[in-house]
Amino acid sequence: MNLPTKDLFTKGLLLKDIKTKSDILQLRFRMAMMNSTKRKGQIIMDKNKRNIYIDNIDVEEAKKVYYDKLNIEPQWEEIDVVNSLGRVTFEAIYAKVSSPNYNAAAMDGILVDSSNTLGATEVNPKILEEGKEFLYINTGNPVVDPYDGVIMIEDVIELGEGKVQILKAAHPWQHVRPIGEDIVATEMVVPSKHKVRPIDIGALISGGIEKVKVYKKPRIGILPTGTEIIEDIKKLETGKIIDSNSRVFEALVIEDGGIPNRYSPIEDDYEKLKKAVLKGVEENDILIIGAGSSAGSKDYTVNIIEELGEVVIHGVALKPGKPTILGIIKGKPVIGIPGYPVSAYLVFETFVTPLILKYIGLKEEKDTFVNAIISKKITSSLKNRELVRVNLGYVNDKLIATPLSSGAGVTMSLVKADGIAIIPQSLEGIDAGGIVNVRLLKPLNQIKETLVSIGSHDIIMDIIGDMMKLTSGHVGSMGGILSTKRGECHIAPIHLLDMETGKYNVSYVKRYFPGQKMAIIKGVKRHQGFIVGRGNPKDIKDFSDLIREDIVYINRQRGAGTRILLDYHLNKENIDPSNIKGYDREMTTHMAVATAVKTGSATTGLGTYSAAKALNLDFIDIAYEDYDFLVPFELLEDDRVKEFIKTLKSDEFKERVEVLGGYGFENIGKIIVVE
Amino acid sequence: MNLPTKDLFTKGLLLKDIKTKSDILQLRFRMAMMNSTKRKGQIIMDKNKRNIYIDNIDVEEAKKVYYDKLNIEPQWEEIDVVNSLGRVTFEAIYAKVSSPNYNAAAMDGILVDSSNTLGATEVNPKILEEGKEFLYINTGNPVVDPYDGVIMIEDVIELGEGKVQILKAAHPWQHVRPIGEDIVATEMVVPSKHKVRPIDIGALISGGIEKVKVYKKPRIGILPTGTEIIEDIKKLETGKIIDSNSRVFEALVIEDGGIPNRYSPIEDDYEKLKKAVLKGVEENDILIIGAGSSAGSKDYTVNIIEELGEVVIHGVALKPGKPTILGIIKGKPVIGIPGYPVSAYLVFETFVTPLILKYIGLKEEKDTFVNAIISKKITSSLKNRELVRVNLGYVNDKLIATPLSSGAGVTMSLVKADGIAIIPQSLEGIDAGGIVNVRLLKPLNQIKETLVSIGSHDIIMDIIGDMMKLTSGHVGSMGGILSTKRGECHIAPIHLLDMETGKYNVSYVKRYFPGQKMAIIKGVKRHQGFIVGRGNPKDIKDFSDLIREDIVYINRQRGAGTRILLDYHLNKENIDPSNIKGYDREMTTHMAVATAVKTGSATTGLGTYSAAKALNLDFIDIAYEDYDFLVPFELLEDDRVKEFIKTLKSDEFKERVEVLGGYGFENIGKIIVVE
Repeated sequence: MNLPTKDLFTKGLLLKDIKTKSDILQLRFRMAMMNSTKRKGQIIMDKNKRNIYIDNIDVEEAKKVYYDKLNIEPQWEEIDVVNSLGRVTFEAIYAKVSSPNYNAAAMDGILVDSSNTLGATEVNPKILEEGKEFLYINTGNPVVDPYDGVIMIEDVIELGEGKVQILKAAHPWQHVRPIGEDIVATEMVVPSKHKVRPIDIGALISGGIEKVKVYKKPRIGILPTGTEIIEDIKKLETGKIIDSNSRVFEALVIEDGGIPNRYSPIEDDYEKLKKAVLKGVEENDILIIGAGSSAGSKDYTVNIIEELGEVVIHGVALKPGKPTILGIIKGKPVIGIPGYPVSAYLVFETFVTPLILKYIGLKEEKDTFVNAIISKKITSSLKNRELVRVNLGYVNDKLIATPLSSGAGVTMSLVKADGIAIIPQSLEGIDAGGIVNVRLLKPLNQIKETLVSIGSHDIIMDIIGDMMKLTSGHVGSMGGILSTKRGECHIAPIHLLDMETGKYNVSYVKRYFPGQKMAIIKGVKRHQGFIVGRGNPKDIKDFSDLIREDIVYINRQRGAGTRILLDYHLNKENIDPSNIKGYDREMTTHMAVATAVKTGSATTGLGTYSAAKALNLDFIDIAYEDYDFLVPFELLEDDRVKEFIKTLKSDEFKERVEVLGGYGFENIGKIIVVE
Repeated sequence: MNLPTKDLFTKGLLLKDIKTKSDILQLRFRMAMMNSTKRKGQIIMDKNKRNIYIDNIDVEEAKKVYYDKLNIEPQWEEIDVVNSLGRVTFEAIYAKVSSPNYNAAAMDGILVDSSNTLGATEVNPKILEEGKEFLYINTGNPVVDPYDGVIMIEDVIELGEGKVQILKAAHPWQHVRPIGEDIVATEMVVPSKHKVRPIDIGALISGGIEKVKVYKKPRIGILPTGTEIIEDIKKLETGKIIDSNSRVFEALVIEDGGIPNRYSPIEDDYEKLKKAVLKGVEENDILIIGAGSSAGSKDYTVNIIEELGEVVIHGVALKPGKPTILGIIKGKPVIGIPGYPVSAYLVFETFVTPLILKYIGLKEEKDTFVNAIISKKITSSLKNRELVRVNLGYVNDKLIATPLSSGAGVTMSLVKADGIAIIPQSLEGIDAGGIVNVRLLKPLNQIKETLVSIGSHDIIMDIIGDMMKLTSGHVGSMGGILSTKRGECHIAPIHLLDMETGKYNVSYVKRYFPGQKMAIIKGVKRHQGFIVGRGNPKDIKDFSDLIREDIVYINRQRGAGTRILLDYHLNKENIDPSNIKGYDREMTTHMAVATAVKTGSATTGLGTYSAAKALNLDFIDIAYEDYDFLVPFELLEDDRVKEFIKTLKSDEFKERVEVLGGYGFENIGKIIVVE
């Protein structure tokens, strides 16, 4: 194997940077990598091949350094105007002919010589003779000598026998579209660097243009790597990951105006990958290498770029997205993109999109930013610019941003995001209630129409979200109560069991909103219980089983109604939680609990019947609880809340929920006022 | 010929509507149409076949009546997820597998059994043995029994010989991505009626989805009609119009998410058109018929729809766009769109776009509206909703809307528009300084960056517009001075000859801005003179020639610097303007004057050398004038104005202007302060 001999592994690690134990460790690993060539295997990390990135360059600086070095020279091609929609003009385009290209009637009526009509009035009408003093003319027909004006047909009185009467003289050139009224030959129709719109196509054709010079679309090679990456979903098994990033890249390239050229994933083999990179550089204008999550694919990428060309930047101050590689091979950009889906997406947007735009002559579009109030503390590092996916909602005329999961692997956080909050490199985080700057992913008027729900999780929220504009944050029932107190949501789904009365919700609302007029919109009744494997293999019967040696429990997060339900029963039955294995392992949704049971990483956990049913698991009924919606009384008049109640009461909703199983609809949509 | 026998021609014309002379005339024509079948010809209007639309239905009402009657049932098809970008989901899509589908390491490091690490501290480190107590693991690799946690490699001290030291205990499941952390099987990945974005493709693939049900794209037949309409630009001649509308429709259909199916233009022949309409209805989901401007194509369309199906609406209260036809044939929508390009575009947007969206499951997107101050009086009719194309600019933090040409034939008014001002049906117009509601065609932040120039016209404004963000309104020099006074523009191009001193611009600025500190940015010097035919066939020498019997003059509008130049000389030489033929015929640009001369509709007109040269005409020099830019002094510090001055001074600008001919660059970019 032909390993690079350059100073790759110490590159970027300056002595001044070596301050912490971790820095020294990193250096040790780098040195070790230089001395070893052999990989050990798949699951076991080959520590000798590790290449820990240590650059931490500011994003804007990285872009500047890299793009300056690339020195891109965009190409053009000539295409038919009729196929130019969305393409970008390479040069200003000037009309070749005028439109109209003759003096044309602008109205239906009669064509006259204006000097012939002088003196006509209501009192002294004039009579004109067809063929001699006038011609009938339609809009668009040419105005021919000796005529110079049009009288609208509505102002003409027909006398029959080829004669008409007019009551008013015509001005010269009245109701005539002069030559070039629309477009004058030689006039600029569209400027250069202009993205062609439908109306531009019309104007260009009217200006006599058949072909236009446009920027040539760059071809972007997309090379997924990593032995763990598979293409065929049917081959999915433990340790394997379906290749999704390269498909996201394909779509992003199309949206940006390039031509995607995706290759099949390359396994972690230095020589194979090197060959594929060389081919990719040969066949494309830009090559992006999607690193898998394994150390092999991560390391090989940077080594191969270094061997075949130059690594300009390795490691940027962006989170997620730190291990980005910006390289050049044979003068062409070669970009290594980290494997976690959210990192991959954000790194593409940050570094590849602007690059594609350079090839097609467009400037980076300025995103729309808004300031919003953050509903949950965000912690961040002084070292990185941090991109936090958020949901946005207008509550009491304030724009509220609620952070979604920060995991770089949580694709759904991007799918569900309304915006991306940018936490600058200089900040250590922002407290709840603080202001964040958010890049909008949806138009603001769409966000204004959206009902914001924060609180307990239930699958029915998905169904409501499919029936109306809803954003739904899952922080547990108590979290929902606190969000409502802070004015961050319109409604809060709650199912809070009063330990004293054994009743649901009302006492909590009274306690947390003293003196405030609140309302509870009755939601669904639902069965909660132990989710267990098919046939209940460990024979779980009640709470006392949870402390058994052979039982591993899977819990919900603090503040979740289901957690409170558990603690209520443990307390009632005097069971010490510390005796329950897995009590500390917290999931945030019913489905996550069910999944843990399904896959055997837990024996049981409390959850809804619908979650058990969805994964074909068994269920031991514990409670039939009230899953309701807390709302400030005055918001009952809000259009979004009204639509929500209408949705709850609809037949479609009930039909769809019934399919899930384990729900009841007693009192659904009923309002209980709590004062 | 098989003419319809239904009550088509009186349809919609109720007795109560017959109030004016015009109504009676219209009725007369309708009756005449019913009694005659023969057309006379092309240029000559066939009054007997006239079908004057008289419905005037409110746009929203028309849409409601028509769409309700259509009762569209969208279709779906199943496609590969990887090809679903931009398509709209027909139903909510639920994940089939979890992602990750196994518990995976979230960090590079060592895999441990957390119970084995209990008690490890900095003071009491623990030593672990590879293969027995730990395994090296990479991000993404499976966490296998009996291990349940990962310690980051940075926190591991390697001792060699397969041993490592740790300084801290591991929590159970630390740095482990649990199964379903991203997506839990059965979770809703995207809702129904959702336009698939790149990130959705990633999430769907990760959720094990290979195929998705999406709304089927409707096929939209586009049928241009009219004998005057030609496809081949090389066949352009007097009386012919190049078919551009159908190409605009094609592009709009693509943008809206349909499949365009354009036919070649059909001549004005009832039977041929009828056959084409039947074929179009057969082959498509929607048929749009682009009426030509001739009476034949206008009339035949409505007659044929009536014969083959039903005309639901004919004539809407929309300007431009009144003669819209909304019909149904064999249950399919057939829409007749007027021929003027601006009408065609706006009618498509108003009636066809929402229809296509219905087929693909999308709601009409809410446009972004802003309020702006109108800089010029708009007159409008109480009868119609009026759509006025406007340029927008931020001047002194106020958003100013400047109306562009209102002609339905002026495509360039749409090409150049930043927005469309909506004048409601209930208003008779809005005075200058009034507030209009404007639908944005460009993002507001782009408009904020744009320099607004209102004043005299010169071709060099096109070149500047190609080099920087500029919107340029042409209202003549005096118009520019008044716009500047009203604070509607940043700069005003002016070339105003002081009749007393024979000098340019400064005295006007002093007179119109007393006590106000203004600046003049020196622009180009340019030659103005008589534009005459090649070889000067009528031997024009000076102003005295203009009163000759055989000379037809073409003038510029009042307030234009060139008009003032003419009047200055006429006054000096005691020539009475009323003796000049064509003195009243006003054009608004130099190119329009040159075009009138080129095409013979005028003998001569005053204009720039560059306009004469562009059309290969001859030129008799009259003046070498100062074409300068007026700007309020404080705006010299504005970024947009600074960039403008930089552009003026650039070599690129001079090189491009020199090609036009007739310009000088003495003092270009120099600032003269006028107090």
